[in-house]
Amino acid sequence: MVNCAIVGATGYTGIELIKILVRHPHVCLTALTTRQKEALSTRRLVPTLPKNLDFEIRPYSFREINQKADCVFLCLPHTEAMETVKKFRKAGKVVIDLSADFRLKGLRDYEHWYGIKHKSPGLLKEAVYGLSEIYRPQISKADLIANPGCYPTGAILGLWPLLKNKLIETDSIVIDAKSGVSGAGKKLNPATQFCEVDENFYAYKVNRHQHTPEILQVLQEASHSKVILTFVPHLLPLQRGILSTMYLKPRKKVTAEAIQKVFTRAYEKEPFVRMKPQGSFPSLKEVQMTNFCDIGFGLSSETDRLIVISAIDNLMKGASGQAVQNMNIRFGFQEEEGFRGW
Amino acid sequence: MVNCAIVGATGYTGIELIKILVRHPHVCLTALTTRQKEALSTRRLVPTLPKNLDFEIRPYSFREINQKADCVFLCLPHTEAMETVKKFRKAGKVVIDLSADFRLKGLRDYEHWYGIKHKSPGLLKEAVYGLSEIYRPQISKADLIANPGCYPTGAILGLWPLLKNKLIETDSIVIDAKSGVSGAGKKLNPATQFCEVDENFYAYKVNRHQHTPEILQVLQEASHSKVILTFVPHLLPLQRGILSTMYLKPRKKVTAEAIQKVFTRAYEKEPFVRMKPQGSFPSLKEVQMTNFCDIGFGLSSETDRLIVISAIDNLMKGASGQAVQNMNIRFGFQEEEGFRGW
Amino acid sequence: MVNCAIVGATGYTGIELIKILVRHPHVCLTALTTRQKEALSTRRLVPTLPKNLDFEIRPYSFREINQKADCVFLCLPHTEAMETVKKFRKAGKVVIDLSADFRLKGLRDYEHWYGIKHKSPGLLKEAVYGLSEIYRPQISKADLIANPGCYPTGAILGLWPLLKNKLIETDSIVIDAKSGVSGAGKKLNPATQFCEVDENFYAYKVNRHQHTPEILQVLQEASHSKVILTFVPHLLPLQRGILSTMYLKPRKKVTAEAIQKVFTRAYEKEPFVRMKPQGSFPSLKEVQMTNFCDIGFGLSSETDRLIVISAIDNLMKGASGQAVQNMNIRFGFQEEEGFRGW
Amino acid sequence: MVNCAIVGATGYTGIELIKILVRHPHVCLTALTTRQKEALSTRRLVPTLPKNLDFEIRPYSFREINQKADCVFLCLPHTEAMETVKKFRKAGKVVIDLSADFRLKGLRDYEHWYGIKHKSPGLLKEAVYGLSEIYRPQISKADLIANPGCYPTGAILGLWPLLKNKLIETDSIVIDAKSGVSGAGKKLNPATQFCEVDENFYAYKVNRHQHTPEILQVLQEASHSKVILTFVPHLLPLQRGILSTMYLKPRKKVTAEAIQKVFTRAYEKEPFVRMKPQGSFPSLKEVQMTNFCDIGFGLSSETDRLIVISAIDNLMKGASGQAVQNMNIRFGFQEEEGFRGW
Repeated sequence: MVNCAIVGATGYTGIELIKILVRHPHVCLTALTTRQKEALSTRRLVPTLPKNLDFEIRPYSFREINQKADCVFLCLPHTEAMETVKKFRKAGKVVIDLSADFRLKGLRDYEHWYGIKHKSPGLLKEAVYGLSEIYRPQISKADLIANPGCYPTGAILGLWPLLKNKLIETDSIVIDAKSGVSGAGKKLNPATQFCEVDENFYAYKVNRHQHTPEILQVLQEASHSKVILTFVPHLLPLQRGILSTMYLKPRKKVTAEAIQKVFTRAYEKEPFVRMKPQGSFPSLKEVQMTNFCDIGFGLSSETDRLIVISAIDNLMKGASGQAVQNMNIRFGFQEEEGFRGW
Repeated sequence: MVNCAIVGATGYTGIELIKILVRHPHVCLTALTTRQKEALSTRRLVPTLPKNLDFEIRPYSFREINQKADCVFLCLPHTEAMETVKKFRKAGKVVIDLSADFRLKGLRDYEHWYGIKHKSPGLLKEAVYGLSEIYRPQISKADLIANPGCYPTGAILGLWPLLKNKLIETDSIVIDAKSGVSGAGKKLNPATQFCEVDENFYAYKVNRHQHTPEILQVLQEASHSKVILTFVPHLLPLQRGILSTMYLKPRKKVTAEAIQKVFTRAYEKEPFVRMKPQGSFPSLKEVQMTNFCDIGFGLSSETDRLIVISAIDNLMKGASGQAVQNMNIRFGFQEEEGFRGW
Repeated sequence: MVNCAIVGATGYTGIELIKILVRHPHVCLTALTTRQKEALSTRRLVPTLPKNLDFEIRPYSFREINQKADCVFLCLPHTEAMETVKKFRKAGKVVIDLSADFRLKGLRDYEHWYGIKHKSPGLLKEAVYGLSEIYRPQISKADLIANPGCYPTGAILGLWPLLKNKLIETDSIVIDAKSGVSGAGKKLNPATQFCEVDENFYAYKVNRHQHTPEILQVLQEASHSKVILTFVPHLLPLQRGILSTMYLKPRKKVTAEAIQKVFTRAYEKEPFVRMKPQGSFPSLKEVQMTNFCDIGFGLSSETDRLIVISAIDNLMKGASGQAVQNMNIRFGFQEEEGFRGW
Repeated sequence: MVNCAIVGATGYTGIELIKILVRHPHVCLTALTTRQKEALSTRRLVPTLPKNLDFEIRPYSFREINQKADCVFLCLPHTEAMETVKKFRKAGKVVIDLSADFRLKGLRDYEHWYGIKHKSPGLLKEAVYGLSEIYRPQISKADLIANPGCYPTGAILGLWPLLKNKLIETDSIVIDAKSGVSGAGKKLNPATQFCEVDENFYAYKVNRHQHTPEILQVLQEASHSKVILTFVPHLLPLQRGILSTMYLKPRKKVTAEAIQKVFTRAYEKEPFVRMKPQGSFPSLKEVQMTNFCDIGFGLSSETDRLIVISAIDNLMKGASGQAVQNMNIRFGFQEEEGFRGW
C-alpha cells in the first residue's frame, strides 16, 4: 500500500485522480487538499462515488501531507507548481507533477513558452518525463515525474515509433489536434461558457501553443535530429477527448508493412495502446473514460503521404490516468491496477 | 458463479449489461446472442473493454443458451420477448426480462397499451416486478423477473414511500419526466437523428405513454386505492438519464419532517437510493453511469404542494443496472457486486 | 424613422436587439453603449452582419444618447436599471426596459424578491407591463415599457385566456419550465461553463425563482382572484428556448371545444402566437430564432387535467423580440416590422 | 421575377432553399416537389415561416414544373439527378443542380468515384461549375449550373488565389476538414443517430472521400499543373458548418505580405468572402446561417509552412446559399438578394 496525497484535488485532473485512486487496490488516499479556504467533501465533486464513501478535501497544509503521504500527486496550475514540488522533493516524497513545470529540459524553452522565470531549475535534471510507454525504465526509478501534457501524449505515441525507426521525414510533421473542453480546466473562462462552445468549432493558438516545445523535445530525442513541427489545436464542442490527425512524409521506399511492423513491435505488449487495423481509424467514443491511446494509420501511394490518427481521453491517458500508470510503474504495481473496472 | 446469457446483446441495454457483467466477480458470461445473422465481436460494441478481453456475439440459438446458461437476460423489444421467455422458463432457466411483456398484471392493460395479444398469459402470474427496493423478498425467489421500465423506476421510487404512508393525495399526481435519447433504443428512427434532437426539446406521447399503466399498477398497490396520474415525458438533447419532477398534494397536516422521516426509513439502508437534504434536488450528472436513484423533495406551505424530483441513469437503474441488481438479489450476492468499480 | 439607442449592447439581449434593429425599416440605430471602458465594433459581437455593415459600441454616455435617440432600449442587469430609467424618462425619452425593475407593481414584492430597495418607486405607476398581446392598448401609449421576463412571457400566454374566461381553477397551477442556457445571460458563471451544462439537466430555484411574483401578478389580474402557483424552472443543455409544461385543473364541465374556442378567439389574429391543433404540442426547434409563441393543449377526461405547453425563444419573444414588437406598437408600425426576414 | 421550382424540397438543402427563396424579392416559388407519395405543407418542414405563409409540396410531376417554372433547383441525391437534369434542359429550363452529377468534367473520374455509369454524358460539357466567386462570368450565361459540394467550396476558396498566383507548392496540399452532421443529409443512417454523434469525433473516408476529385479538378485548373492533395474529412458533433484547416508549403521567398495582397485582391469586393486579419482565424459561429466564407491565414518562418483556415455553413455557402447566389448571377440580380435579412 502506498499512502497518496492529491494537492489541488478540486480541479478536473484532481477529481479524475480521486475517481481512479479510490478504487486502486494498493493505494490509500491519506490527504486531499485544495487552495480554497474551506474544506469540502469529495461527494460534492465526485457525486458518483458509492453512498457511504466520502473524503474530506482540506485547505492545503504542507505539514499534513508531509506526515501522511509518501507519494504526492500535484494538480496545480503551470508556474504555481514548481516551488511546491521543491518542498516535497526536499522532504523525500515521490512527486508526480501534472503541471508543465518540469517537462521541458531547456530552461530557456520554459521561460520563453510560459513567460516566467523558473524557480527550481536545479530539479529539471532530476525530473523524468512521464510518458509511460517510452520512459518506463526511467520512470520506475524516478522521484520526480513530470507527467506529460494531453496534446503531447496523444501525438507522441503516434509518432515515436516512426521517428525512432526512421520511417518518416523530420522536416514536415503536421499535427492537427482537436480537444474537448475539459482540457481547458475548470477555471472560469468566457471562452468555455456553454453558449460560446456549443455548436461552435475553431482553431486556437495556431503555431503558438505551449505544448509545442514539449512535443518537439521528445520527437527530437526519438529521431536524433531537428524536427520541424506544425501544431494546430482546435476546440471541440464536447467534454472529453483529443483526436490528433497527423500528416507525415514517409521516407523513400517505406511500405505500409514496415509501418505496421514497427507499430506492432512498439505497442503489442502495451496494456494501454491499441493499434487499429491498417486503414481503420479511432474515434473519441472508443477511448473516453479509459486510459487507452488508440492509433490508426493509412499510407497512400498516390499522394506519398502517411496519415496517423491517435485518440485519447485528455483527463485519463492525457493526465490523471497516465499519472496513476506512472505511479504503478514507480511502485512496482501492475500497470493496469486501478483501471480494471473501466 | 452463475453462468449468464444475454439475448439481444447488441442493443443499448445489452451493451450496458456486457459492461457490467464482464466485471462481475460471480458471473461467467457464457453466451451472447443477436437476432442479426452474422456473429460479431464485443469489441465493436464495447470499445472500452480492456485490450485482450473479447467475446463473440453469435446468432441466436436456443439450444446453445440452454446448454450454457443458468440465468438469461432478455433484451428483446416489447412484444417479441414473450415467446422466448416461455421457452426459457420451460427449460428451467432464471429469466430476467428487460422488455415490458411481463410487467403488467392485467392482460387487458397489456393488450390495450401494447396493441397486441399476449402469447404467454399463463406466465404473468409467475412474473415478479423487478423494482429491487420494493419487491426484494419476491425477487429473491423469482424465476421470472419483469425488469421495470426506465420512467417507472425513477417515478415509483420517488412516490412509493409517500403513498405507502398515506402522506399524499392519490387523485392528482403529476409526473413531468425528461429523458435522454438512449431511452429510445438503438433502432433507426428519424426522431432520434442528431439534427432532430440536438438543440431541441419537446414533450411526446402526452397522456398516452405505454409506461403509464406500469406506474399506476405499482402506485395503486402502494396506496390500496385508485390513483389519478398525469404523466408527460419529454426528450432531452443528451444521451443518458431521466429526471422526473413530480407535483403532489400533501394530505392535511403532513409536515416536511414527516416526509423526511418516511424517506429516510425507506431508503437509509438502500445501497442505490440516495436522499438529498430537504430543499436540495438531484441532477443527471450525479447519477449518470451509476445505478443510483437520487431523490430530493421540497414542501411549500404557501402553495400546499409537495415537489419530489428523482434522477436515474435510464440504462443503469432504469434498465441493465437494475437487472444486475435483481440478479444479485436472486442469487444471493451482495447487491453492489458488479457496481463497485463505478 | 425612430432614432434608437441600446444601452448595454454587449449582453445577449443587446446583441439580439442589434440583429433585429439593423434590419428594421423604420429604425435608425444612433447609439450603442456598453458599461465597459473601451469601444468595440458590432462585428465582434454579431459576426453574421453583412460585410460592410458595422457600428461602434461606445462607453456609456447619457449626454450622447440624450442627443441622438428618441427611444432607448435598456439592457442592464436587474437592480442596475432603475436609476438610468429615471434619467431617460426625465429627459422625455421612450424607454423600453428589459430588466425586471419596473415589472412588479408592488414595491414590497420587488424588494422581497430582488433583495434591494427600489430607487425610483415613483415610476412604477407609469410603467406598463409589455406583454404585447395582453397590454397592447396601454403599450401603444406608454413611455416606460417594462419588458416581461422570459419565463413569464411563455407561461402567461398559455394561461391568460383560460383564466380570463374562468376555464381553470386558480388554486393549483403548476408550471414546469425548461430553459436554454442563454437565459442566464453572458456573465461568467461556474454553472454555465460547458462541462457543467453539457449532458446535464436539473431543476433550480425550486419555488423561489424571482419570476414567480411577475407571473402571479398578471395571472391574478386575469382571474380577479388569488392564484396559487407552483413554478419550477430547469436548465436545458442547449442555447435558446423555453418550453413550459403547465398542469391545470379545468373547472367543472369545461370541454376541449370551449378551450379551443377561447384560445382561437384570443390568438387567431395575433401575428406572433400560433396554436397547435388540439393534442399536438410545440417543440423548441419550431420557435428558435423567431418571435413566435407556440401553444398546444390536451384535455384528459380520465384524469380531469388540462395540459398546456408553450414554447418561445427566450432571447426573442422572451426578451429582445418582444421589446421590438412593443416598440412597433408604441410607434404605430406594423407589429411584424423587423421580423419579416425570419 | 423568376418562377422557380425546387425538386426534392424535403431534404436539408431543399428546406434551406425554401427559407431563402420565400424572402427573395425577385423570386416566385411556383412548384415544390418531393419523391414521396403524399403532399405535405412547408409548415411541417420549415416551422419558422410566418404564421400565414404556407406552400404545398407535391409529389414530383415533370409536367407541372415544366408549366410553372423557368428555373429549377434540383436537390436530388447523387446519381439520381442526371436523368432529371436532362429532361429539364431539353425543356429549356435553367437548371441549378445541387447533386454531384455534373461537377466532374472527366467521365471516368465520375464513374470511378460514384461507382455508376453516367447517363447524360453529353451535358457534362455544357455544365458550369458553380463556384460563384471563381466562375462568375461563365455562370452568368450558364443554363446548367453544377452547384459545388460543401467541402470543395470552403477548401477551394482558401486555396484558389494562392495557386493562381503560384504562391504555394502543388505537391503537398493537406486539407483537414471538419463538418457538422447536416452535411450527411436527412437520410436515416446509424452513424448520424444522436447517441452515435453526440460527444464523439472521428475522421471518415480518409483519402477516399468523393469530393476529392472535385477539389483536385479546380485546383489543377488554377495552378495549370498536377496537384497532390491529401483530404481528410471529420464529423463534428454539431449541426451546421465546415471548418477546413489547410497545411501548405509556400514557394521560396513568398512573404505574408504577398499572400495578404493576393487574398485582398481576390476577395475585397466579394460580398460573401471575408478575410480575417493575418494570424487571426475564423470560427463556425461566425458563418452559421449565413452565405459567408471566412478565411484566415498564418505564415510561419520557423516551420516554413502556411496555414489557411476557411469556414462556411455547409447548407448555405456549401449548398443552397451558393445555389441562390448562382441564380442571382445567372438572372442578373444583385448577389446579396435573398440574403439581406441574415
